[in-house]
Amino acid sequence: MATYKVRFLPDDKEVKVTEGNTLLEAAEKADIYINSLCGGEGLCGECRLQVTRGKAKADKNAIGFFSKEEIENGYVLACQTKVEDNLEVMVPAKSRLEEEKIITEGVTLTYSEPENISLHKRPTDPASFFEPLVSKVYLELKEPSLDDNVADIDRVVRELGKKVRFSSFEISLACLQNLADKLRRNKWRVTATIVRHNGIGRILQIEGDDTTERNYGLAIDVGTTTVVVQLVHLKTGKVVGVESSHNRQARYGEDVISRMVFACSRGSLNPVHEAVIANINTLTQALSRQAGIDIKDITSIVAAGNTTMSHFLLGLMPCSIRLEPYVPTATVYPQILARDAGIDINPQGILEVMPSVASYVGGDIVAGALACGLSDKQEVQCLVDVGTNGEIAIGNNDWIVCCSASAGPAFEGGGSRWGMRANKGAIEKIEIEDGQVNYETIGKAKPRGICGSGLIDTIYEMARNKIIGQNGKFNLSAHEGRVIAEDNDPHYILAFPEETESGEAITISESEIGNLIKSKGAVFAAMKSLIDYVGLTFNQLQNIYVAGGFGSSLDISKAVAIGLLPDIDTRKIQFIGNSSIMGARMALLSAPAFEKAINISKKMTNIELSNYLPFMDEFVAALFLPHTDKTLFPSVSY
Amino acid sequence: MATYKVRFLPDDKEVKVTEGNTLLEAAEKADIYINSLCGGEGLCGECRLQVTRGKAKADKNAIGFFSKEEIENGYVLACQTKVEDNLEVMVPAKSRLEEEKIITEGVTLTYSEPENISLHKRPTDPASFFEPLVSKVYLELKEPSLDDNVADIDRVVRELGKKVRFSSFEISLACLQNLADKLRRNKWRVTATIVRHNGIGRILQIEGDDTTERNYGLAIDVGTTTVVVQLVHLKTGKVVGVESSHNRQARYGEDVISRMVFACSRGSLNPVHEAVIANINTLTQALSRQAGIDIKDITSIVAAGNTTMSHFLLGLMPCSIRLEPYVPTATVYPQILARDAGIDINPQGILEVMPSVASYVGGDIVAGALACGLSDKQEVQCLVDVGTNGEIAIGNNDWIVCCSASAGPAFEGGGSRWGMRANKGAIEKIEIEDGQVNYETIGKAKPRGICGSGLIDTIYEMARNKIIGQNGKFNLSAHEGRVIAEDNDPHYILAFPEETESGEAITISESEIGNLIKSKGAVFAAMKSLIDYVGLTFNQLQNIYVAGGFGSSLDISKAVAIGLLPDIDTRKIQFIGNSSIMGARMALLSAPAFEKAINISKKMTNIELSNYLPFMDEFVAALFLPHTDKTLFPSVSY
Repeated sequence: MATYKVRFLPDDKEVKVTEGNTLLEAAEKADIYINSLCGGEGLCGECRLQVTRGKAKADKNAIGFFSKEEIENGYVLACQTKVEDNLEVMVPAKSRLEEEKIITEGVTLTYSEPENISLHKRPTDPASFFEPLVSKVYLELKEPSLDDNVADIDRVVRELGKKVRFSSFEISLACLQNLADKLRRNKWRVTATIVRHNGIGRILQIEGDDTTERNYGLAIDVGTTTVVVQLVHLKTGKVVGVESSHNRQARYGEDVISRMVFACSRGSLNPVHEAVIANINTLTQALSRQAGIDIKDITSIVAAGNTTMSHFLLGLMPCSIRLEPYVPTATVYPQILARDAGIDINPQGILEVMPSVASYVGGDIVAGALACGLSDKQEVQCLVDVGTNGEIAIGNNDWIVCCSASAGPAFEGGGSRWGMRANKGAIEKIEIEDGQVNYETIGKAKPRGICGSGLIDTIYEMARNKIIGQNGKFNLSAHEGRVIAEDNDPHYILAFPEETESGEAITISESEIGNLIKSKGAVFAAMKSLIDYVGLTFNQLQNIYVAGGFGSSLDISKAVAIGLLPDIDTRKIQFIGNSSIMGARMALLSAPAFEKAINISKKMTNIELSNYLPFMDEFVAALFLPHTDKTLFPSVSY
Repeated sequence: MATYKVRFLPDDKEVKVTEGNTLLEAAEKADIYINSLCGGEGLCGECRLQVTRGKAKADKNAIGFFSKEEIENGYVLACQTKVEDNLEVMVPAKSRLEEEKIITEGVTLTYSEPENISLHKRPTDPASFFEPLVSKVYLELKEPSLDDNVADIDRVVRELGKKVRFSSFEISLACLQNLADKLRRNKWRVTATIVRHNGIGRILQIEGDDTTERNYGLAIDVGTTTVVVQLVHLKTGKVVGVESSHNRQARYGEDVISRMVFACSRGSLNPVHEAVIANINTLTQALSRQAGIDIKDITSIVAAGNTTMSHFLLGLMPCSIRLEPYVPTATVYPQILARDAGIDINPQGILEVMPSVASYVGGDIVAGALACGLSDKQEVQCLVDVGTNGEIAIGNNDWIVCCSASAGPAFEGGGSRWGMRANKGAIEKIEIEDGQVNYETIGKAKPRGICGSGLIDTIYEMARNKIIGQNGKFNLSAHEGRVIAEDNDPHYILAFPEETESGEAITISESEIGNLIKSKGAVFAAMKSLIDYVGLTFNQLQNIYVAGGFGSSLDISKAVAIGLLPDIDTRKIQFIGNSSIMGARMALLSAPAFEKAINISKKMTNIELSNYLPFMDEFVAALFLPHTDKTLFPSVSY
């Protein structure tokens, strides 16, 4: 087979590829990450490239994504274009995975975690709560003599037993193999790193001298869209740093379903597994560098993610998750060495993954339930996590029911032209008054797009100003100059070209609003189905905790007003940001908390909505602003 | 540095070596195993080679090992001769490690194990005893449905819980990773392989269909001199085959001390570790071939050896074992994957090593104590294992004391010109009557040497016939024609050249008898010290079990008569052969037995004889036939 050279601009990277490979594969080889929300199926039109030299056939199916002018200028879809000539290709900024922009511009995603939410979880004596999964213990051992010549490991364990509470200890072979030398070279002063495993203290490593200060852990939220890593000092419990990036799995599909289809149709999850591991390793390196610590001093990780993400993380084939009857390989995961998953920390460092409940109720919601204390009180509370997959849990110290609904990535900035994560430049607040659009952006920068909270405000303000009707359809006569009715999909201009960073107008279209309404409808319908299922009303809930990647300034009353959240006393509704990583960090810092999470996961009863007839009716009824049943939203009026 | 070619004859193998390498290293490179009892220190004179072409300097220190004629004919010590020319070298059969002879001739060492000894250990219901460490369980699982869509592993565990008694189960990541596919491809009919680990059932592998028939284990006796491997069918408990070979570590020294010196002076135990692993892998392959089984169907190993051997096996540095205060790295060893020690069986197969008591009281004696039921009765019994290191345990169901004494390899065929293991051609029984020597050989072959039982007979018969005195010194006037007084070390001809396989006379010399007396003296002194220590007399023992590699036909009364064993009713003394492998097999076939072994090891109190003053007096007193204190041996008269 012939091979061809492909040069990518403006990066000026050249790779050789075999005839018949796609431009998407060539770009990957060149380490250029291209958007591919549909997983390379030619459906999303995100992977647009411009061929500036050489012949490339534009696929017939791709024509719909381009204007006549663009086709003439050599625009193609990377995933649908096979390399059959030496090519020079321009990669438009918009086609790149946003991650690259983040790295280039040094901007990190904002990350919200109200500290107060984790505080009420702790018992009166914080010391009894603070008991990290992995701890370091400094030992000064008595030198052996003929009267006391027990084996080296017994000497270590004898002293350990005085300092930590474990019924027994075990040690890995690797650790045992250099123990004799290590004890003697360090004059019997050593530090043991211990992890709890099945109630036993497993000695992970023995280091010379007192290294108890040098003990770090990672709390990781493995989201479908974003990966967030916190570096935590395990001696003090302090968060040393936090970094996040877009999940590199995006190149294999925007949502969990398309990534599963990708892996299962190819019979291998390796690329998908390795993509998220690359995320974690890159973020971990950045965090270590910033904190000035050695990566070898990271001894433990607790990761939380939905069930599919957890499977990909651990290299478990997720194929049966996708198909009825939706069976995961595991919901409680074994404690493993992080390196066995490909993560670079201390070679003896461990990885725990937060337990899941079912195929579509994952460790992220269990972590959230742990973080917001869902199982701690007699009063019934609710946790709703609005992600690409919306997950809802309702319960108390006696019972918890939960469900999930595919909400789509609309509120995370996916699926729309100008939607974006809550990054610098994202419009996070909007008010429309007399045809004027007033907005605030993150970091007070020129607007680059709109994040979740901004989108909620947008819908609410457009409905309130009658720019759209309660069905989400445009009133084409409103707001002359901002409402543009072309391409069969009218759109509204939120920021004019001269205001924005790119010099292009930031808009929202009717079809995009339709998607947002579907998303909010799915979340609300799931909440409604679940509260009906347990025979309660929303007003009987003591609290609703709202988690998700909306950005830091979600306006609860507007979220209620568009029908995303139920119409109860808004003081009972609390936005808690990323509850998944909060729970992961609690487990990292507290072995009892991790055990509690396992108990929560076992206690949770999952209601399979796909199997639950009332849900579809609820969904259809919720495709309206705020709802077709106005009595459900008595306080809302437009 | 120059390189030279060395060609070995009669093998006709040629290797290239760097200038300055020794001939011993060159031979190793050519996969020719040369005797080197002293570990290459130029002290034993076992590695004699004849340089037939090229120049090689005979080391000055080596001259004492050769006759003038031999030096003229190019004889050198392989370990003391550096390669500084292209050479052609003849390897005499006597210089090869006996192992090679075994393989060439297809002879295996005899292996004795009286079946009845293991029988009395079993409770009335054998089923409750038979509970292999690793078992296979066939499962027919219910296919998942929407009403029953628990995770795959939970489905497996749910069914397992009905069939085996474990409080909980865990599964390795590797096993989990292909579980979903395996269950579905095999239509939910699978076999789980489970090992007990810290009271938990650890699932090692899941196979399609019913493979419960295909489950094998290895019981291994890792002796300083010999490695014995039994292949056991774990479903029935039947021994399928047994193979043995000389411990390849012999090239690094004959006894544990010289091997430790070798490893510790070089700062690496890898060659010594790898040598014994090569033994095990070769024997395992041979056993699998003979039995026609796949090596992947071997799921477990229990190995027993002295503490140093256990350390070498697991790759634990043994340096502090050798030096006061004699501290091993561990006495209870972690359960590991056999492959982590380099052993080729099922990649998920496990290796358990029998627990030791102290640096010189190893897992072999613990295995022996398990096998002979030392801890089962109220009556006090004694186990004496006569190996290169003699180990003695005395005790009952309440207490056990033990000790060890360096006995040397004399009774295992080491340290003398014609001593050999109990192989084909070994003289195992001897009677001397009126100047006639009547002997029996193993396999009724022409004599090739003398094994342990033959040596005991020899000493006894020579003393009885006044050929030697009670101090072991020759009566030079006795038995004309058989007593030869040359080289300052008189010797006695047991078989004339025309009777033997090699055509050389088989003899025993005064100094060799001196070594044997030292060996028997050390063993008896240790027994005497220990029985005194507990305040008993030998007559109060209900049984003395004698283990060791003497050969299958140890004459107990002659062993008493030379003062190796105490002079009690010989019906109370039972020769049990290789009790180490017997205990290992019991543990392999019974998880409770393995737990019992751990309890035995913890219960045993080790008396450090090097620290125990009376021992040296006892030793000196025992350097006489049968003993300087004749009242200890009232029934013995020569």
